[in-house]
Amino acid sequence: MTDPYVEEAGRLDAADSLAAFRDRFVIADPAIVYLDGNSLGRLPRATRDRLRAVADEWGEELIDGWRRWLPVGREAGDLVARIVGAEPGEVVLSDSTGVNLYKLAVAALDARPGRDVIVTDDDNFPTDRYILDGVAAARGLKVRRIGPGLDDGVRPEDVEAALDARVALVCLSHVAYRSGAVADLAAVTAAAHRHGALVLWDLCHSAGAVPVGLSAAGADLAVGCTYKYLNGGPGSPAFLYVRRDLQPRLEQPIWGWFGQSDQFAMGPDYRPVPAIERFLVGTPPVLTGYAALEGARLTAEAGIEAVAAKARSLTGYALRLADAWLAPLGFRAASPRDGRRRGAHLTLRHPSAWPVCQAAKAAGVVPDYRAPERLRLGFPPLYTRHIDVHEGLSRLREVAASGRYRDFPDDPKGLT
Amino acid sequence: MTDPYVEEAGRLDAADSLAAFRDRFVIADPAIVYLDGNSLGRLPRATRDRLRAVADEWGEELIDGWRRWLPVGREAGDLVARIVGAEPGEVVLSDSTGVNLYKLAVAALDARPGRDVIVTDDDNFPTDRYILDGVAAARGLKVRRIGPGLDDGVRPEDVEAALDARVALVCLSHVAYRSGAVADLAAVTAAAHRHGALVLWDLCHSAGAVPVGLSAAGADLAVGCTYKYLNGGPGSPAFLYVRRDLQPRLEQPIWGWFGQSDQFAMGPDYRPVPAIERFLVGTPPVLTGYAALEGARLTAEAGIEAVAAKARSLTGYALRLADAWLAPLGFRAASPRDGRRRGAHLTLRHPSAWPVCQAAKAAGVVPDYRAPERLRLGFPPLYTRHIDVHEGLSRLREVAASGRYRDFPDDPKGLT
Repeated sequence: MTDPYVEEAGRLDAADSLAAFRDRFVIADPAIVYLDGNSLGRLPRATRDRLRAVADEWGEELIDGWRRWLPVGREAGDLVARIVGAEPGEVVLSDSTGVNLYKLAVAALDARPGRDVIVTDDDNFPTDRYILDGVAAARGLKVRRIGPGLDDGVRPEDVEAALDARVALVCLSHVAYRSGAVADLAAVTAAAHRHGALVLWDLCHSAGAVPVGLSAAGADLAVGCTYKYLNGGPGSPAFLYVRRDLQPRLEQPIWGWFGQSDQFAMGPDYRPVPAIERFLVGTPPVLTGYAALEGARLTAEAGIEAVAAKARSLTGYALRLADAWLAPLGFRAASPRDGRRRGAHLTLRHPSAWPVCQAAKAAGVVPDYRAPERLRLGFPPLYTRHIDVHEGLSRLREVAASGRYRDFPDDPKGLT
Repeated sequence: MTDPYVEEAGRLDAADSLAAFRDRFVIADPAIVYLDGNSLGRLPRATRDRLRAVADEWGEELIDGWRRWLPVGREAGDLVARIVGAEPGEVVLSDSTGVNLYKLAVAALDARPGRDVIVTDDDNFPTDRYILDGVAAARGLKVRRIGPGLDDGVRPEDVEAALDARVALVCLSHVAYRSGAVADLAAVTAAAHRHGALVLWDLCHSAGAVPVGLSAAGADLAVGCTYKYLNGGPGSPAFLYVRRDLQPRLEQPIWGWFGQSDQFAMGPDYRPVPAIERFLVGTPPVLTGYAALEGARLTAEAGIEAVAAKARSLTGYALRLADAWLAPLGFRAASPRDGRRRGAHLTLRHPSAWPVCQAAKAAGVVPDYRAPERLRLGFPPLYTRHIDVHEGLSRLREVAASGRYRDFPDDPKGLT
């Protein structure tokens, strides 16, 4: 008896215009179904080569290598700009997502004196919530939280209801880290602007997964990481976006020399450049910067619309398999059913999600766990095939149906 | 006619207990005399291998690699702790020097409420001055600058004179980036403590060049980079030090999830760990973290006392050559003459320092330029021989004596 889902996977993969991109990545063990590229993307072959080349440049060119390396944050930034719908010169690699969020949040608050409220949502990524709480505590501001919207994400009307003339800043994730729900960036931005507030978007789960359309929406500020769908590698540098007209008008709080005009004059006073580099602080990381560049290049080359279309196909297919195979075993989809409202990952709720996650890994399929009781499955479009989704969910079904996950302890600690 | 300085170099190199360390580095072109390792250290052979290994781990282990990688910042931190005279658990890799300086400066100021003055010196590295100015501007504080002390560095009595009950924080470089002068860390720390202030040291030009003795001095806080004498590579992560008893009492302003207790519970409130990790923010950079680890390992293995003794020998020898060869050509030493008061670099003042620097590079010796009118020569002890110093200064003499530097434009822009 043939499995109609296998045939469907075959048809979809045969028609996949991005199929050749899979060969651009190192697939060390094809027997493992990796569904956690939304946490850490795969190693591009070009990155492996580039890292060797840059190490050689360091050895050979020494200090003169900086002439070659200095533009890397801007070059990678311009690629990321294409991916998130921004203009060249509006995005640069910099620090970590958390440090960037802090810098841009403080810059935004300084630009809205007299307003004392930050709006975010209960389901925002922990580091975002913590950093906003820290900024609010230091400045005596109030954080107004929209909640809960756990599985369906933040709706524009919920944001609208939280807005008034006290709000300086709205800070939200574009794609929710848990549910994968896509917020309506344009509608939220427009609503915030009507009330005179700035908006700071976290694009960690969007960049390389869905179109973001920053320029089209007139978005103010954004940050994001490069190690998920952009395949920049573990701890690769984050990026930040500031709309061009805002750049000379905003001042970030960490006055480092890489934001300074005439940097090597080493003069007495900080006078930041009137460009995206004013949001930089210290010496840029070269090796990880090139890893981020090579990773982003693949998504830019594929084109974000094609990438997002494949993401919708993969998550839609996965949802059909989950409905058919996993729902009867106690799993419940905890992501939007509307493909246009989903990122490139799906979340399934199960009361034993942690042991199921461990049992799945033992069975050669790698999801990750997110509290509470959620199994998160990522489908990075550049290297994931529909047949991988089939194989992964089939193994998950077997793990759940056999009850084998009960052999694993229920102790949700750790990274996965 | 034999050159007595050549014989001296030969004797000193033959007696050098660290001579074998040179082979641990990639020396791509032995004809180049590299005297800029104080800006960017050389590539260790072990680092080249480690980078390949970590990239392979990323490709093969994917998300599970984090179990292996997570401790890298602490492992490298413990090596740096040995080098700067601190205890295990008091140092961790984190962010850039500038971001670390900001975090620790704000943490210190929050711990000294009611005090409104920061003390630093006019000759402190630009990013340090700018960041302190930014923090002071944001909080309505005053920056009290000790000056000028350009060539001889900051004296404890100058710091003492700037101290009173209004001072919350003293922030100085241990080894001055321009002159190489070593500040008396223990005396300054004791003086600040008598007045109830905390001290934050910048160790960028100290770590791997001179003993720092943080624990012996009861030092409070320090930051530093790993890409100079620690040979961590371009843009490798910085480190920060917080004395153990201060760790649970200080709170840094950027509340990131890598400082959070029970990080993956992703709970509602920020409750930082009572340890050095509370000063972290975002996902640590793995590739550059391992580069920093491998670089620091070499200095830790050699032992900072032996490294510093060789640095004194190299800089003393260079000073003798400069006196004999370069003083008659218009160069003036702009570094302390007392070997115990010097780091591992020497600075020479010359009215045409920029064109001389360019001409020197054309002649195969690589110094760097620092405004105003200074040629900076670095002698990282792990790979610099006395015969290299001889060759480098001999070429510099030739460049100056021939007047060939006049062919180079006097336009001091750029990194070197």
